[in-house]
Amino acid sequence: MSSSPLHAIMNPSSIAFVGASNNLVKMGSLQCLNLIHSGFSGDILPVHPREDVVLGKKAYHFVSDLPYAPDLAVLVVPTGLVPDMLEDFGRLGTRNAVIISGGFRETGISGKDLELRISDIARRYGMRFVGPNCVGIINTQLPLNLTIAPVRDYNGRLGIASQSGTYVTQTLPYLHKHGITVSKAISIGNGTSIDIVDCLEYLGDDEQTAAIVLYIEGIDRAGDFLDAARAISRRKPIVAQYVGGTEAGARAVSSHTGSMAGPDYVYDGLFKQAGVIRADTIEDAYKIGWTLASQPPLEGSRIGVLTNSGGPGTGIANMCNQYGLEVKEFSDEVQKEIREFIPGYASAKNPVDLTFHMDMSVLAEKIPRVLFAADEIDGVIIHGIMDTGWMDMLFPILKPMIDIPREDFLNMRKADISNLTDLSFRHGKPLIISSFFGDEDHALNAFNRNGIPTFDSPEKAGRAMAALYEHFLIRNMPHDKPDTGMEMPENVRSIVDSTDTQAFDEYTAKKILREYGIPTTREFLVNTIEEAVDSAGAIGYPVALKVCSPHIMHKTERGMVHLAIQDDESLQKAFHSIRSKDEKSAMLVSEMLRGNREFMAGMTYSPGFPPCIMFGLGGVFTEALKDNAIRLAPLSHSDAVAMAESLASRALLGPYRGMQPVDMDAIASMLVALGRLALDFPQIREIDLNPVIINDGMPKVADALFVRGV
Amino acid sequence: MSSSPLHAIMNPSSIAFVGASNNLVKMGSLQCLNLIHSGFSGDILPVHPREDVVLGKKAYHFVSDLPYAPDLAVLVVPTGLVPDMLEDFGRLGTRNAVIISGGFRETGISGKDLELRISDIARRYGMRFVGPNCVGIINTQLPLNLTIAPVRDYNGRLGIASQSGTYVTQTLPYLHKHGITVSKAISIGNGTSIDIVDCLEYLGDDEQTAAIVLYIEGIDRAGDFLDAARAISRRKPIVAQYVGGTEAGARAVSSHTGSMAGPDYVYDGLFKQAGVIRADTIEDAYKIGWTLASQPPLEGSRIGVLTNSGGPGTGIANMCNQYGLEVKEFSDEVQKEIREFIPGYASAKNPVDLTFHMDMSVLAEKIPRVLFAADEIDGVIIHGIMDTGWMDMLFPILKPMIDIPREDFLNMRKADISNLTDLSFRHGKPLIISSFFGDEDHALNAFNRNGIPTFDSPEKAGRAMAALYEHFLIRNMPHDKPDTGMEMPENVRSIVDSTDTQAFDEYTAKKILREYGIPTTREFLVNTIEEAVDSAGAIGYPVALKVCSPHIMHKTERGMVHLAIQDDESLQKAFHSIRSKDEKSAMLVSEMLRGNREFMAGMTYSPGFPPCIMFGLGGVFTEALKDNAIRLAPLSHSDAVAMAESLASRALLGPYRGMQPVDMDAIASMLVALGRLALDFPQIREIDLNPVIINDGMPKVADALFVRGV
Repeated sequence: MSSSPLHAIMNPSSIAFVGASNNLVKMGSLQCLNLIHSGFSGDILPVHPREDVVLGKKAYHFVSDLPYAPDLAVLVVPTGLVPDMLEDFGRLGTRNAVIISGGFRETGISGKDLELRISDIARRYGMRFVGPNCVGIINTQLPLNLTIAPVRDYNGRLGIASQSGTYVTQTLPYLHKHGITVSKAISIGNGTSIDIVDCLEYLGDDEQTAAIVLYIEGIDRAGDFLDAARAISRRKPIVAQYVGGTEAGARAVSSHTGSMAGPDYVYDGLFKQAGVIRADTIEDAYKIGWTLASQPPLEGSRIGVLTNSGGPGTGIANMCNQYGLEVKEFSDEVQKEIREFIPGYASAKNPVDLTFHMDMSVLAEKIPRVLFAADEIDGVIIHGIMDTGWMDMLFPILKPMIDIPREDFLNMRKADISNLTDLSFRHGKPLIISSFFGDEDHALNAFNRNGIPTFDSPEKAGRAMAALYEHFLIRNMPHDKPDTGMEMPENVRSIVDSTDTQAFDEYTAKKILREYGIPTTREFLVNTIEEAVDSAGAIGYPVALKVCSPHIMHKTERGMVHLAIQDDESLQKAFHSIRSKDEKSAMLVSEMLRGNREFMAGMTYSPGFPPCIMFGLGGVFTEALKDNAIRLAPLSHSDAVAMAESLASRALLGPYRGMQPVDMDAIASMLVALGRLALDFPQIREIDLNPVIINDGMPKVADALFVRGV
Repeated sequence: MSSSPLHAIMNPSSIAFVGASNNLVKMGSLQCLNLIHSGFSGDILPVHPREDVVLGKKAYHFVSDLPYAPDLAVLVVPTGLVPDMLEDFGRLGTRNAVIISGGFRETGISGKDLELRISDIARRYGMRFVGPNCVGIINTQLPLNLTIAPVRDYNGRLGIASQSGTYVTQTLPYLHKHGITVSKAISIGNGTSIDIVDCLEYLGDDEQTAAIVLYIEGIDRAGDFLDAARAISRRKPIVAQYVGGTEAGARAVSSHTGSMAGPDYVYDGLFKQAGVIRADTIEDAYKIGWTLASQPPLEGSRIGVLTNSGGPGTGIANMCNQYGLEVKEFSDEVQKEIREFIPGYASAKNPVDLTFHMDMSVLAEKIPRVLFAADEIDGVIIHGIMDTGWMDMLFPILKPMIDIPREDFLNMRKADISNLTDLSFRHGKPLIISSFFGDEDHALNAFNRNGIPTFDSPEKAGRAMAALYEHFLIRNMPHDKPDTGMEMPENVRSIVDSTDTQAFDEYTAKKILREYGIPTTREFLVNTIEEAVDSAGAIGYPVALKVCSPHIMHKTERGMVHLAIQDDESLQKAFHSIRSKDEKSAMLVSEMLRGNREFMAGMTYSPGFPPCIMFGLGGVFTEALKDNAIRLAPLSHSDAVAMAESLASRALLGPYRGMQPVDMDAIASMLVALGRLALDFPQIREIDLNPVIINDGMPKVADALFVRGV
């Protein structure tokens, strides 16, 4: 049994409902009525200040009148009444609540105070609650439904946790129409006591839930989310939509659930690291989620495409290819078997294009049997199975010519799809259906009711297959965990503590990096021309000379960096030039690295996130190309390798244009160490290592900036 | 009246139909029946070898039996019969045909021969035909429908030309369900006589057609397509899907319509240059096309978002922002007006989140009135209007409590949307609806039947608004045309003619470039050390020394390029080094350019395309970042500027990191000239100028390769 606090909330045996009345136009009444009709078999105890009977159930005027402490309290009351009500239930002994009422932190300062108050009350009584500012919860197994919309499919497979109530209420008829069945659904609201991480952990453990869909406006515990998601995603698919990544998105989020949204690329990095499949639209979230929940896992990249039309077949093949799936020509044997069922001019290659055909058994039975039996595919997409919808379309033209009632006519070409659904599950290979007809067509309806995902655009069927492939890759991601037991290098604490400026000077920053095993350019701190010349002698020309001060930013733009100095004389000139602009700062004499490839590494913070480590193309191209990746600290070795490999410019890391390949272990060690450094010193809020020059295949930090928090 | 050959085909007053019988299971019979029922008011003359009456119409046994030459012949006959039939109609005097029959070039060599034969016959008689291998044509104005699927909406607005028959047949019920009405639809098939360019030109001229959707598997006349599309797209939106850009896509295309597909980036460049809006799925093509066909043009980037729920509002705002649209907070005055209609805790900012509300007049009338009247928005997206669908969902829970028949209950909250549709057209500002209910909901159905586009995912509504914005930008693209009247520079023909190798040596290639006004590095061709030293003296150190031979590829990798030579001694050493690897080739002494920014320009061919000019990031990053753009020659100045500005790395062209901005006129002139050169010398099949170094803000070609066709 799950240890999640949600387990008790989702499985009560008795429910007190405050806020329902006999006025059916009120939200609370509708929700309570829906609860009554959802099939919930436990006690339902309405609380109402005046009524003795509410919606046919005996009602209690005060919480203190209740005959016992119910397992769950549901509050749909004006904002101001919530604290006292919660207190009443706490005193009574109820430990779980769903607070539907809104008007808390999403409305501003005073709402935030009120939200803190209910948190306090809950903490005092050891209570946990979903909400506030939510629409309730659904458990189709118990069953239990606290939302306003009725559930029609019980014992479903898709688990949903959403920071928008609409996506577990208004969309229920939509989900039914698309054959999507829900296991558990949680409207998180402001997530004050039960947040999205709790929901994720609960759905991860829930046996009924085959895949998880998350609608996210902001995560307050991104580190915990990462830990939970990466453990779950390797066995159970997680699909997420995140909408707070733009200016308008973030502003809308703030007035909706009061969440702090972060930049899109930070969430993108989190999802990649956690093995979460990202959806761009709520439609994709649901339909990709359903494909993952309903189908056997895809175990390879070979897709068979079968259609009754060239256009959709081409669209599917093209989309599959774009996402890295293969649509290879079948072997001669398989093509021969297929050709028995298709006209001479049709193509048996893959896509198989049967061309227009009235006998649905070829498309829905005979050729699929060949495809699933052959060892040449890992998954199948079929476009064009349709029956009553098509016949219904033809009926008006044929009616004058034939003497058959409409019903009989529609059923004349009914497809038997039971064999097809069976084939998919028996062979353990996924099947996806594309059709321009919807649930009104008998065949499509049968797919929808039998757990086969259907799509109304061929390319979307291809995209859904790509999501199955994405989960195949996630399941096969390396399993290594971040090493969190390492001790902080000696001396570093004293270096950091003795720095009293907001920015660290380059020399100090690099000293700290080297303590963490991050290679930097070789260099000396100098104050006089003599020291500079001696240092250059020790390093060997060419060298670089730069000002070294925590107070001087943009030193290159200010002409205080001289590169590729070839001899003593030039060095002296450079020294004088810098000195003329700054009278007292020390300078750095550094080795000049040879290398055509420049990267950057760094660290940044985002609200609710642990330190975010960044790696990307650096040097002069940093801002122009913005080619970088983010992962959250602590990083595992594989996290670090994966982020480097995700760059658009990743070819530069390989044996590129005669240059030797970059040592990926060295890159990964650098990034892992950067994450440790960031976690060891939370007072450092920003790190910028740029450029990191690739020298003989090894990365070396040539410039470094650390900034402390204010 | 249109001069297009399609005009006659689309508007016949009499039709001979070969291939219909009284066997209703045959395709031809169904199509003819559909024609009869489509409301076509002219003569329909079936031709059948044995029957005297077909589908209730007097039939003729032979074409030669026909009483007169009908305007249009439709052939749904076995492939082998097509040539003789066409000949018969030609002899009779019919000048237009639609050839449904397949089995031509899409099946291989013998089919290709047969296709040539029917082309010949048509040419001899001055006939034009649609097809073969198509499903027919639709004109909802005449009306006329030759496809198998009935049309339900007449006098529609969206023009469709498709290289897949499915997209003008199987999808008709889908289009109806989504409220999309068709003006003209053409199934192009193999496009032998009437191709996609003819269709585009016809739909461009057609007054009934408000926007055009193209489904493309390959274009044989890309230059003509460009000319036609760029003239049309500035007044009438064109949306296109292209599916031949991947290996699997191209293979599927070839066995479908026998088209030659080209790489995706070439088509992408063509679409951008032509002002064609690209769709990734056929759903997007239809629905974006319909938004453009049905709505007033968007005249700015300010979008008002109105919802009854925070999640969809956030999703819409986020998607709008991603595509460059603004969702700005409304002014205090507008917010004040809105607040009169919404609860205190709801947001009036934009998105306006009314929160859940049963009174649809607020969402469908009162707030929209404020939004459209205010001068703060250019377009509006509304999510959440719904009535009977929602009530139908509630009915089962409320039924036991109320004594109202279902029909009456459903109608209790019916929204009046007539004011809303009117608002949009009266203010000349587009309106887009998002809802999780479909055509089964009265409100949605009303939008669908009244020309307001509806979307079942909030983000898709945002994406559709972005397409309106894309067309706003296209309408405002510069109008300059390529200058095609310029003469070929003197001397160039003789230089090209006197080159007898497949590759041109670098010196010759650069000489030709300079003749076209394209700046290159300054350089001398040398054969001896003395000449080399003299040349270096004339140019001034540092210089580069490279081998110069049409036979030596990859000279850098082979150690035959020496850069940054500082003095005579090093030059002599470099000379000897190259000479030791190659005994006789000449060498080039070139100036060494200073510049951190390296680009590339080039020319390539793709099947059916004129020369494609390429510009992108060059030097060491060329293959690693693949950041480039393509346009077709001849290029206008604005084409060239637009392609440079479309680069991901375009920031490098600006005043980047203290470097001076690149002279965009110089870049554009170079690309325009490259296009002229390519058109002047079609025997040159490939040009690669890489790197093009930016030196003091001006581009200079540092290396050049021309390859002749074999």
